[in-house]
Amino acid sequence: MARAPHTLAMSSAAPIIVLFTDFGLEGPYTGQMKAVLRREAPASDIIDLFADAPAGDAKAGAYLLAAYAAWFPAGAIFLCVVDPGVGGARAPLIVEADGRRYVGPDNGLFEIVLRRAASARVKAIVWRPEQLSASFHGRDLFAPAAAALAQGTPLATRHHAALRHADWPDDLAEIVYIDHYGNALTGLRAKALPATARLSAGKARRIARAETFSAVPPGTAFWYENSNGLAEIAVNRGRASDALALAVGAPVAIER
Amino acid sequence: MARAPHTLAMSSAAPIIVLFTDFGLEGPYTGQMKAVLRREAPASDIIDLFADAPAGDAKAGAYLLAAYAAWFPAGAIFLCVVDPGVGGARAPLIVEADGRRYVGPDNGLFEIVLRRAASARVKAIVWRPEQLSASFHGRDLFAPAAAALAQGTPLATRHHAALRHADWPDDLAEIVYIDHYGNALTGLRAKALPATARLSAGKARRIARAETFSAVPPGTAFWYENSNGLAEIAVNRGRASDALALAVGAPVAIER
Amino acid sequence: MARAPHTLAMSSAAPIIVLFTDFGLEGPYTGQMKAVLRREAPASDIIDLFADAPAGDAKAGAYLLAAYAAWFPAGAIFLCVVDPGVGGARAPLIVEADGRRYVGPDNGLFEIVLRRAASARVKAIVWRPEQLSASFHGRDLFAPAAAALAQGTPLATRHHAALRHADWPDDLAEIVYIDHYGNALTGLRAKALPATARLSAGKARRIARAETFSAVPPGTAFWYENSNGLAEIAVNRGRASDALALAVGAPVAIER
Repeated sequence: MARAPHTLAMSSAAPIIVLFTDFGLEGPYTGQMKAVLRREAPASDIIDLFADAPAGDAKAGAYLLAAYAAWFPAGAIFLCVVDPGVGGARAPLIVEADGRRYVGPDNGLFEIVLRRAASARVKAIVWRPEQLSASFHGRDLFAPAAAALAQGTPLATRHHAALRHADWPDDLAEIVYIDHYGNALTGLRAKALPATARLSAGKARRIARAETFSAVPPGTAFWYENSNGLAEIAVNRGRASDALALAVGAPVAIER
Repeated sequence: MARAPHTLAMSSAAPIIVLFTDFGLEGPYTGQMKAVLRREAPASDIIDLFADAPAGDAKAGAYLLAAYAAWFPAGAIFLCVVDPGVGGARAPLIVEADGRRYVGPDNGLFEIVLRRAASARVKAIVWRPEQLSASFHGRDLFAPAAAALAQGTPLATRHHAALRHADWPDDLAEIVYIDHYGNALTGLRAKALPATARLSAGKARRIARAETFSAVPPGTAFWYENSNGLAEIAVNRGRASDALALAVGAPVAIER
Repeated sequence: MARAPHTLAMSSAAPIIVLFTDFGLEGPYTGQMKAVLRREAPASDIIDLFADAPAGDAKAGAYLLAAYAAWFPAGAIFLCVVDPGVGGARAPLIVEADGRRYVGPDNGLFEIVLRRAASARVKAIVWRPEQLSASFHGRDLFAPAAAALAQGTPLATRHHAALRHADWPDDLAEIVYIDHYGNALTGLRAKALPATARLSAGKARRIARAETFSAVPPGTAFWYENSNGLAEIAVNRGRASDALALAVGAPVAIER
């Protein structure tokens, strides 16, 4: 049962389909998308990774997705719907990067996955359903496309050059997600920072790195490498987001 | 893979069981209900449609349910628990309407499904579990009944005339749901409104229809036909519920 | 289909794995843990019982877990992650109590399950994954251990005496959970209280027991035996937590 800790090993079963959306937990969106997946790719397990990626924020999502997708094995299919431009002109994409496949809109959401990939291919989905709602391509277009990949069903595509965002940094010095505990995830890979780096964000001033929560006294702010490799700001036994006034988009200053 | 966009096509597998409740995402309620379903109807897929239907509000729920159930194929079984009268005298129902089946309390939740059905049958569930909690019929009564339908297991029922709500309109000019993005769903089918209709609700004054979010400038309020056919009030790149002070139950004025 | 109401009967299938965590509904934690379970114990159903146990609060969790686990059949495996001491010295445990198995940290979370068990065995998990993140043992250690139990795969363990909390009462006179409806669950088993007991908590003063919501007028506060046997404070058609200013940890006074 031994396995590497920061990646999930491959399995011989049908590809898993991993959901990465800003739909929220509430409401009918994820359920309708899963109804399509269950019908069209019944052998695939569906994993809810993020249903609460920052709403409409493809840039923050791009750094989150790259960090969390890397934990999954080659073969995994990511159904990624952060799509504020739905109904407009943005292309629907299939991205293949380092053996993982991604389905979603051409709005920058895959920028960091592409940037870090040793090899990648991008295609636009030409296939359209008989009818297509104006506002829910996750259900009507992206989910059937992801199911087709999972099933090995042919799907009409064409070569496509994704819109690239060369001005986005390799590591983003901003808060990209606040979790249930109030911990603030940055868009910075911990390995891109020296262990002695100090971070400032919100009311946090020059906080130091610690290995784990219990290494600092209760109430103390620190940063650490989270279980998916991102630098994360936390307070032992407290809520960093409240105590330090942190929110998605807040800039992070790095003192190396 | 071509399919109509606003309905899910049939499959030959065991019937899917679709959950429509006001349990919330939190807590142990949905999990316990699913434990019953998994044990008693193991071949059926379970789809979480709404876990956050307006709490205790059978009327708002009736319009939501009718709009969202119509997307699912004939054969689907809806386990519907918005049940503020649990433990009182209301009957537990099985409704068959246009080939879909519904299980839940006789409190108006199925009024609009029945109203719009070309053909319908209503039965009361006579079967009772050996013991029945006073407050969680979703787990103890409705879930086993839905599983029996899915499995084709006999279940004791009797003919029953559902309580009808003739005073409820065919389309409800109220907000019935606020989604994760702050969009406000009305109980009005878009096709019941002229394309030139203007809607007023909360601070929204005479807003016009648009086809899609990107058709209006950021910050602009509009209404559109959502992916399940309801008229929905939104703000491009904004939260309509906050910007326009909209909440479930708020009346909607229509200028035709 | 008859079955006892307050327990789920056994099935011959692979053991179910029941999740009891404080991860919250949001974010990537439950999803990553399920990805491990799906890969390593593909035949087991996974049931989300609580994802929102009080954050970092092993004591409140202990009373919740004992009440809700008792509903599940012998053979069920509970993957329990309320683990504020992750990365510190606390041992990872497997607890077998009355035929159910529990995996989680040695921090008191299993105290009440152990206290109430007719028979119990506790072991520490010696097995470690090749690499282990400092902050997410739910994914890296506890989930693979639970999957090994489900699959019958050998797992290195040793005898271990759990840290016991003899000062914790058999029934806890505090609010341990606020549910989606605003109902306040206490750590008191209803059967440990006389039917004539009156409870005071927050602004609730000497409230009486009722059998069910509809037995009291709208707006009235009462307590009742919930569907898992706990005394619960509620307001008919209202939110007790708001109306009575109740929160997790609030003391409950009992007048017998």
